[in-house]
Amino acid sequence: MTNQAEKFYNSHLKLSRHCAVLEGINKVMQWDQETCMPPGGATIRSEQLQTLAGIIHKERTSKKYISSLSKLIDIETGEIKHDELSPAKKAAIKLWRRDLLQQQALPNSFVKKFAQLTSESILIWRNARKNNNFEEFAPYLDKIVEMNQQKAEYLGYDQHPYDALLNSFEPEMTTEEVTKLFNSVKKSMSSLLKKINLKKQPSDSFLHGKFSEKKQMEFGEMLIEDMGIDTDHCRIDFSTHPFSSSSHPSDSRITTRIHPTNFISNILVLLHEGGHSQYEMGLPEEHYGSPLAEAISLGIHESQSQWWEAKIGMSKPFWKHYLPVLRNTFKGKLDKVTLNTFYKAINKVEPSLIRVEADEVTYPLHVIVRFELEKALIEGTLEAKDVPTAWNHMTEELLGIVPENDRLGCLQDIHWSLGGFGYFPTYTLGNMYAAQLFEKFEKDHPDWEKHVSRGNLEFIKEWLHKSVHKHGRRYSSKDLIKKVTGKKFSEKAYINYIENKYKELYKI
Amino acid sequence: MTNQAEKFYNSHLKLSRHCAVLEGINKVMQWDQETCMPPGGATIRSEQLQTLAGIIHKERTSKKYISSLSKLIDIETGEIKHDELSPAKKAAIKLWRRDLLQQQALPNSFVKKFAQLTSESILIWRNARKNNNFEEFAPYLDKIVEMNQQKAEYLGYDQHPYDALLNSFEPEMTTEEVTKLFNSVKKSMSSLLKKINLKKQPSDSFLHGKFSEKKQMEFGEMLIEDMGIDTDHCRIDFSTHPFSSSSHPSDSRITTRIHPTNFISNILVLLHEGGHSQYEMGLPEEHYGSPLAEAISLGIHESQSQWWEAKIGMSKPFWKHYLPVLRNTFKGKLDKVTLNTFYKAINKVEPSLIRVEADEVTYPLHVIVRFELEKALIEGTLEAKDVPTAWNHMTEELLGIVPENDRLGCLQDIHWSLGGFGYFPTYTLGNMYAAQLFEKFEKDHPDWEKHVSRGNLEFIKEWLHKSVHKHGRRYSSKDLIKKVTGKKFSEKAYINYIENKYKELYKI
Repeated sequence: MTNQAEKFYNSHLKLSRHCAVLEGINKVMQWDQETCMPPGGATIRSEQLQTLAGIIHKERTSKKYISSLSKLIDIETGEIKHDELSPAKKAAIKLWRRDLLQQQALPNSFVKKFAQLTSESILIWRNARKNNNFEEFAPYLDKIVEMNQQKAEYLGYDQHPYDALLNSFEPEMTTEEVTKLFNSVKKSMSSLLKKINLKKQPSDSFLHGKFSEKKQMEFGEMLIEDMGIDTDHCRIDFSTHPFSSSSHPSDSRITTRIHPTNFISNILVLLHEGGHSQYEMGLPEEHYGSPLAEAISLGIHESQSQWWEAKIGMSKPFWKHYLPVLRNTFKGKLDKVTLNTFYKAINKVEPSLIRVEADEVTYPLHVIVRFELEKALIEGTLEAKDVPTAWNHMTEELLGIVPENDRLGCLQDIHWSLGGFGYFPTYTLGNMYAAQLFEKFEKDHPDWEKHVSRGNLEFIKEWLHKSVHKHGRRYSSKDLIKKVTGKKFSEKAYINYIENKYKELYKI
Repeated sequence: MTNQAEKFYNSHLKLSRHCAVLEGINKVMQWDQETCMPPGGATIRSEQLQTLAGIIHKERTSKKYISSLSKLIDIETGEIKHDELSPAKKAAIKLWRRDLLQQQALPNSFVKKFAQLTSESILIWRNARKNNNFEEFAPYLDKIVEMNQQKAEYLGYDQHPYDALLNSFEPEMTTEEVTKLFNSVKKSMSSLLKKINLKKQPSDSFLHGKFSEKKQMEFGEMLIEDMGIDTDHCRIDFSTHPFSSSSHPSDSRITTRIHPTNFISNILVLLHEGGHSQYEMGLPEEHYGSPLAEAISLGIHESQSQWWEAKIGMSKPFWKHYLPVLRNTFKGKLDKVTLNTFYKAINKVEPSLIRVEADEVTYPLHVIVRFELEKALIEGTLEAKDVPTAWNHMTEELLGIVPENDRLGCLQDIHWSLGGFGYFPTYTLGNMYAAQLFEKFEKDHPDWEKHVSRGNLEFIKEWLHKSVHKHGRRYSSKDLIKKVTGKKFSEKAYINYIENKYKELYKI
């Protein structure tokens, strides 16, 4: 009987692995599109990606696939058919079913129409942003909202249509929970920001200016290696918008960009994308093809990148070790900068208009603006045409500044044009996961600062691996946090972390 | 009735285009493997490529595909079912049938076994070459020969089993024809080589030494643009073995390598690979998905690369324009080198052991050694273990030199380990096609030297486009040559070209 169950499992794994291989190919093609592809190849690339996506969808919902999964679980009720299977395998089977139901929920005609709309919208959005003219984009945003509302109905939800959208990126998270978490964060960060605004700002002029690109990259590559990333399995390139992409745990790619006047930007980007890559490279290869070798959610992914970028890369012990290395790299440029001055400069808090350039304190406020607008759009209490006014109003309320134009306001992000409603909250959820995990990490490694200040980072990777990476998707975000930290997931660790760090920095 | 035929055609084109898109993805993945892929990604890449190849094979031989093709042509007899279709479409339909029969001829089990054998053999060959030990490779070569003999039986042939293998790379070419052509070439080149060997060699020391890699690439990129290649659709990278790869006429990639001590090597490689890319980029996009947008054969492909590398890139008018540019690029290094000296140096003829480094006169002799050995192996008159002796014997006979070891002899090429019997002859066939086409080109453009010596190359691209590229696979190699030049394909133009050029160079 056990043998039979294992046989069924392995047989389904084989089908799923076949799809995973195709998904890996898709990743390489997408990476190539952003890094290498000659610009004239864009049209055929879009056809290539659509063709692949079509094949994957077809295979993931084929009769053969469903019938093989049905031998493991009752697709309708979700009841596992073989109690003797390991808990990990049972978790995998449940996730296979979840994914299948999600794939089946959206009619093919809807998926095609949605893809068509977003591929038009992205071009319209690009132009609208260039022309600083939201009106060009508004009718498309209206359609995107409408299709997202429809998507929510197809996917189904208990309480709020936004739940269904959120779930595509952050399974098992509800709009109600996020609203509660974000309200608490909003209160704390706004209040902290008001106090910081009264304080004297640190000097950070030494971060700006011309720094050799080659040396920036040498330093960044050293950090990637110090993080414990095996460069036999990972490469670094440039792209307009940095990202990380893995076609398999054994083949991961990071991209970065050189900021024209701020050398710290590239370093933090590399740590950030390195965190994403390390997660993908740490997924258990032996389960490749099953959800046990997949990432949990965008939020958990973001927790890994934020971990390396902010918790480590913007910490004092880190720079205790690396500032001398940096001084040596850019000879003469940072000789007079002390550790304290440097630490204060890279953690400077200042309300600004662009989300991707925001600091740790104001970043969540940018996310909250978007989350609340998305929710209102999906609820139908806000129309696309009124987004600029609402955006500017909320930005003023939360950040105390108003965008001079929509390019610096509601036209700045690509996400809506891509149809990705429910995506933004995962950034801040990621920060929260990271903070709660870090609290436990500090308990497990009370002397972490000592190690890091000696340039020893490998133990961090090991901790993340055993706590997060190796489990794949076995647990939901919330369950993983509970399992690792022993506490229910909440915003507390995050707020504590931010308040402690920045009250000390700004002497509040 | 016409509408119905067109409907059937378009419907089959749609299926075929779907496969072509997947083949294009395969090309990007292979390109990535050689240029970008982290070394640790090799295992999963092999699975990715095999998975794609499997899907393509399945789709190209599916019931749906066959049934749709059957509406256009009788698969068994080859009779076209709709006389009202255009000649081009009829040609496409016949080629679809040809490809289908080839795909169907090989049983799946055979294809898998063959792929397994060659993927092992390539590793064994690499080691054997490294260890300079042919005995390690011999048993694998035996198996490869055996499977190629079997492949020939599956594919079928009229006269010689080698015909079937040759046909995979050069359709409609027979062993008998190639033997005859090559015997004539062998005679001429051997006799010419003997005469050259008695002459004083030109000095070419100025070609060697250290030349800035950056400047080499700048010069090479300028040539690519001068050839009329649109860099919006083509990129250049480095790889161990240079190649050209196109996933679509709108996305082509060239790779090159910098020779450590000879700057002319990289220039000629870029012209060569540029010729391949120009062919692929010139295939008619409007027919994409049908054989009318595919290359004819490896031989015709090679004619395009040889055209740019040798006919143009090693000609005097070319360097009349570019030598001054080169002098300016490598300031001080070539100031004293006259056009004549330069022209003689880059066309120096000298028997050597390595095929890929051979000059125009000795290159075909290297190919003939391989062709005759392949033929004997397939006929069963030669055993793998006796290859080194036979190789050395023939090399001595044709080139007058004997390899000191097998690394410089029969272990130098990768082709056999890949299972590619029938591939080598296409190099020399390509030279012959190029020469016969060039004869016609000279008639059409009697003042070509004047234009080229002014750096005007675009008219060459235009001639190649209208004569070769735009036809796709509509004609066979031999038919194309006949159609363009008005003469039956023969070795004459090739022998004339080589003899005239080198008799003048060596004052024979």
